[in-house]
Amino acid sequence: MSSNKGTAMGGGGEEREHRSPRMSERVSASGSTSQSCIFCRIAKKELPSEFVHEDEQCVAFRDVNPQAPVHWLIVPKRHVERLHDLTEADRPLLGHLVLTARLMAERAGVAESGYRLVVNNGDDGGQTVPHLHLHLLGGRAMRWPPG
Amino acid sequence: MSSNKGTAMGGGGEEREHRSPRMSERVSASGSTSQSCIFCRIAKKELPSEFVHEDEQCVAFRDVNPQAPVHWLIVPKRHVERLHDLTEADRPLLGHLVLTARLMAERAGVAESGYRLVVNNGDDGGQTVPHLHLHLLGGRAMRWPPG
Repeated sequence: MSSNKGTAMGGGGEEREHRSPRMSERVSASGSTSQSCIFCRIAKKELPSEFVHEDEQCVAFRDVNPQAPVHWLIVPKRHVERLHDLTEADRPLLGHLVLTARLMAERAGVAESGYRLVVNNGDDGGQTVPHLHLHLLGGRAMRWPPG
Repeated sequence: MSSNKGTAMGGGGEEREHRSPRMSERVSASGSTSQSCIFCRIAKKELPSEFVHEDEQCVAFRDVNPQAPVHWLIVPKRHVERLHDLTEADRPLLGHLVLTARLMAERAGVAESGYRLVVNNGDDGGQTVPHLHLHLLGGRAMRWPPG
């Protein structure tokens, strides 16, 4: 995982230090990462974060480094490192995450004005936190290309 | 739908003229758009396009105005104007579209190097073709913000 691109995928006050290369390497090397994963810790309320949504499968909260007036993250509670780690058995989870993003767009008031959903997978995708998350961005006209 | 942002969501040789504001307005105003929708016509092979994938639910093809070395579109065969039009009943379709994007990342050779998935919904999202589609981008380091 790259963690030095200055991208914006945080979710709590402490994730900057957790995004250091050293931490990412340790997390990636550990195999079982849920103990140290920042998003797991946020989902378990071990780190402070104000949820805009919570259900059995996922939570949603504001990105700490927002790139648009609305920039929320939708994060599965289950530790999944990358989108690419999901399989056929995860279709319901994927559907749920996207529909939750849709619901969050309603809640954020951008359903009609429009929004962009983004998922970064791996280094070239710009993924900085090794726990699957969807970015919901809205409240301004998004540009092209998408990064 | 905005169609004058110069964004890149084509899928066949003719969609530039189909993307004119006039066309978009006509499509949007028609209610039933599958007859005139460019992506419906591509999916039905009424317009020339080289698919990189086809199954019962969706097709995938290269964006005609690529924003990265790999820039493919995953498009449901069923006419759905916006992501936001989907409901709970569409969870399986959503899961299928995302898993197809994952498969396309394998096929394009960017699974390990990384990739970004993007869905534009409505004007602020930068959606130019009023038929749901997922953008798969890879082959270079994607930047932040995502547009």
